[in-house]
Amino acid sequence: MSIHKPAITLLISCPDGPGIVAAVSNFIFEHKGNILESDQHSTHKGEYVFFMRTSFDEEGFALSREELLARFQPIAEQFHMQWSVHYTRQQKRVGILVSKLDHCLTDLLWRWKSGELPMDIPFIISNHPDLEPLADMYGVPYYLFPVRRETRGADQQRMLEFMEGKVDFLILARYMQILEPSVVAQYPHRIINIHHSFLPAFIGANPYQRAFERGVKLIGATAHYVTDNLDEGPIIAQDVIHCNHRDTTEDLVRKGRDVERRVLAEAVRLHTENRVLVHENKSIVF
Amino acid sequence: MSIHKPAITLLISCPDGPGIVAAVSNFIFEHKGNILESDQHSTHKGEYVFFMRTSFDEEGFALSREELLARFQPIAEQFHMQWSVHYTRQQKRVGILVSKLDHCLTDLLWRWKSGELPMDIPFIISNHPDLEPLADMYGVPYYLFPVRRETRGADQQRMLEFMEGKVDFLILARYMQILEPSVVAQYPHRIINIHHSFLPAFIGANPYQRAFERGVKLIGATAHYVTDNLDEGPIIAQDVIHCNHRDTTEDLVRKGRDVERRVLAEAVRLHTENRVLVHENKSIVF
Amino acid sequence: MSIHKPAITLLISCPDGPGIVAAVSNFIFEHKGNILESDQHSTHKGEYVFFMRTSFDEEGFALSREELLARFQPIAEQFHMQWSVHYTRQQKRVGILVSKLDHCLTDLLWRWKSGELPMDIPFIISNHPDLEPLADMYGVPYYLFPVRRETRGADQQRMLEFMEGKVDFLILARYMQILEPSVVAQYPHRIINIHHSFLPAFIGANPYQRAFERGVKLIGATAHYVTDNLDEGPIIAQDVIHCNHRDTTEDLVRKGRDVERRVLAEAVRLHTENRVLVHENKSIVF
Amino acid sequence: MSIHKPAITLLISCPDGPGIVAAVSNFIFEHKGNILESDQHSTHKGEYVFFMRTSFDEEGFALSREELLARFQPIAEQFHMQWSVHYTRQQKRVGILVSKLDHCLTDLLWRWKSGELPMDIPFIISNHPDLEPLADMYGVPYYLFPVRRETRGADQQRMLEFMEGKVDFLILARYMQILEPSVVAQYPHRIINIHHSFLPAFIGANPYQRAFERGVKLIGATAHYVTDNLDEGPIIAQDVIHCNHRDTTEDLVRKGRDVERRVLAEAVRLHTENRVLVHENKSIVF
Repeated sequence: MSIHKPAITLLISCPDGPGIVAAVSNFIFEHKGNILESDQHSTHKGEYVFFMRTSFDEEGFALSREELLARFQPIAEQFHMQWSVHYTRQQKRVGILVSKLDHCLTDLLWRWKSGELPMDIPFIISNHPDLEPLADMYGVPYYLFPVRRETRGADQQRMLEFMEGKVDFLILARYMQILEPSVVAQYPHRIINIHHSFLPAFIGANPYQRAFERGVKLIGATAHYVTDNLDEGPIIAQDVIHCNHRDTTEDLVRKGRDVERRVLAEAVRLHTENRVLVHENKSIVF
Repeated sequence: MSIHKPAITLLISCPDGPGIVAAVSNFIFEHKGNILESDQHSTHKGEYVFFMRTSFDEEGFALSREELLARFQPIAEQFHMQWSVHYTRQQKRVGILVSKLDHCLTDLLWRWKSGELPMDIPFIISNHPDLEPLADMYGVPYYLFPVRRETRGADQQRMLEFMEGKVDFLILARYMQILEPSVVAQYPHRIINIHHSFLPAFIGANPYQRAFERGVKLIGATAHYVTDNLDEGPIIAQDVIHCNHRDTTEDLVRKGRDVERRVLAEAVRLHTENRVLVHENKSIVF
Repeated sequence: MSIHKPAITLLISCPDGPGIVAAVSNFIFEHKGNILESDQHSTHKGEYVFFMRTSFDEEGFALSREELLARFQPIAEQFHMQWSVHYTRQQKRVGILVSKLDHCLTDLLWRWKSGELPMDIPFIISNHPDLEPLADMYGVPYYLFPVRRETRGADQQRMLEFMEGKVDFLILARYMQILEPSVVAQYPHRIINIHHSFLPAFIGANPYQRAFERGVKLIGATAHYVTDNLDEGPIIAQDVIHCNHRDTTEDLVRKGRDVERRVLAEAVRLHTENRVLVHENKSIVF
Repeated sequence: MSIHKPAITLLISCPDGPGIVAAVSNFIFEHKGNILESDQHSTHKGEYVFFMRTSFDEEGFALSREELLARFQPIAEQFHMQWSVHYTRQQKRVGILVSKLDHCLTDLLWRWKSGELPMDIPFIISNHPDLEPLADMYGVPYYLFPVRRETRGADQQRMLEFMEGKVDFLILARYMQILEPSVVAQYPHRIINIHHSFLPAFIGANPYQRAFERGVKLIGATAHYVTDNLDEGPIIAQDVIHCNHRDTTEDLVRKGRDVERRVLAEAVRLHTENRVLVHENKSIVF
């Protein structure tokens, strides 16, 4: 749901137990917040964990940001919450990392420009110069950070320093470099990656060629948060596209591009609207 | 979500305003209810309407059904709620109405028997004898209520009297008779119908033949609650299936059967789990 | 299937009967053509109609274009064929007509530039100046042809004269003007239009608003050839996207844009690869 | 496409080269065959392989089965074809193997009885007695062939001897035993299996539980021919179903059942209509 009036969103996860929803909604109610959307979920596997996302009008709400943070703290402590507060008036700032492929970047920039993705893009970073003209089209600064295998640690360190304080999350829009653990550690559950997915999986080189040889009838894409386990972080969005024996390897690549950009854009939209909570290695998408 | 421990579900709709969620969750909390699932939605078109579905453990909850009804009443009145309470231990009872086509009935009976649809089926009613053996297979009583055009009012009146007190809702599983307004009035938003849907729509006779002639690439199905406006009640579930020029009219019919039974089963599942709220002509599906 | 070596494609429709495939493939074989793809379809409704699409290598084929046309003519006459020949080396030229909405144009231009759509774009025509910067980005000439209701006939006549001889087909990429019959007559089955599709259909104004009020669970798009019957020409491609009660009218519009641009791009690809044959009001898509 | 008049279907694969289609269609034409459907495909990876499926009316065709086999042989030899001939009047005979889960068997039996699957079912075999009542409902003989781990070779040998000469192909409708190589060898590309598919794949035990823990957004199913490489034979059909964090492990199992039975039924339909050709480890589905 798009929210146009300025809104405040609370994201909460904590051990499950009675009274949480009542405490949170009382808090909002007492300070004259008008709830716009609220969603909860509990998971009951071994431990009981509770998740909540609540949006309410900023207009009319009696507390400033600082007051909100201070006064909610006792409730958060009482229920052992992990929590965060987000104001729609303060858009997230994103750094987009690309290499040479442009399909995801084109799609993100168009959606961003057309108002679908509420975010600011202070920069695009690439290890190749190829996509600078595309960045120029949309007036987004483009910075070249070449990465060589032998100096990857130092190369990415420079990149990390450049980004410091400028962005809230990163998108790997077909960025063909493995990120150093130091980069991942700096943006926990704040780096969104996209990769193709096949049924069955084809590990290793040339997956499209091998999918073609196997005659798969579906190819898909998965958008996920980056963790230290490559491609195994919490899944945000997935989709597939049908194919058949008439599709050449090149057709599979074309279809793969389509599903990749669609799934990545969806994941970014969910993230910018603060709809994703992560627990262990699983995402809760409200 | 399937809930296996006995649970209580509250369905609420009312004019939107602050304090509703707090009041409801306080009520549950005070009486020692442990919330399992809770979902809310507000719609802001002209008027502001609020919808809520909350499930909590029956075990440990301090109130009996009668106490719950009595003590919640003041809250309901304060917020001008339409509301209902459902216990999973008390399954809904459904009457299934069929004619000659068996694809929807077969699917419903199998899913019911396999535990996917938490409901009791006291009877199947048909205006034709054809599907009695299928009912027998599953041990469900089958009653023949022929309907003639000239005596439809009286015929359906007899049917209505037979059903009285025996069921909570009805499924029209390809029942090829228009229901009298008196029957519809008896089961408001409690009769689920399935019909095929085409893009574009083909009004009138032989829609599959006309869809074939037009070369449609999709055919779909819509499950909805029956109202006095034929096929125009609130939509519960919809889906489509792809087709192409190689599909004969008969192939379209076969694909139509597939999507119809899938969509009907989904709508029935949502209804039996008390996941559907209706406001004006729109359904909210939690 | 993408064909990279230069290829020749034959499209044929004729009354069905024995010997057609043999005659065509003998013809190709005798003149040393190596068949790359071949697909046939017959429809048996009342009359028997036969459709065929065959692609073969241009390299090695013994006949020039003129010779091919001349020598195939007797076969075409023998079987009462409607037929056409297409060389991949000679890309189709397309004129794109737009108004103010950019989602379809953006998508078409990106796919065109990335090589997915084998076509030349001599010009973009619009009745509004808004999308000229987008055309400039991709270096495509943009011409403003305002259309006023009172002078639509004359306005479109000027447009028609401008286009004459410059293009092989037209794309209406959300062009919000009804085309004059004189324009349609000039490009029979060569104007591709896209429009949203709902289940059920919502005829008239504000369909997204009405779809929202009805609570539809699907919205779709249909790409079709334009005929004199508005929005009722042969369907080339269709798809849908799921939605739910959380989607605002604006979300439905966003999802509608997504499915529209996807379906339009697919229809254009099929057309540029000569994969669509039309018979009566139905398309055969190979 | 369903073919109701008796038809003959030719399936051909051979090294690609000019003249094949002409030779085959000439052959059919000369003997007064009226082609109903014809589809070809060539694959150009390293070697060039050609695939063809042609159906023509049995009525009016001048050759008996024996004459057809004899007279086509020289053409087959000329082009080094692997080929087979199928008469729709002679339905394939299938043995269905099951264990305890009934969702696939229920679906197959219903579709078979309703005429969707043109095949005879001489028997159902199981290593458990559980599904005998279901077989009885549909009047299909049910044979119990227990399989113990220590004696699996001998157990399956007895089964193999029992089946000999009775069936043309096998369906593993959730048969939870690994087939001995001797069984697989007896029915090359004639054993259809169904298994769940996840993105990413979860190898090993409890895949639904692990998919739940990972928070997958899709689960799928793959129908394939059984080869000696477990679950790695040529894919016939695949599909997926969407899911989200609200789905419990049990919901995933339910959705998995739905997509499994749908995909298996589709694969069986394609096989019974002789629409699947296998080349190396890939299926061509016409």
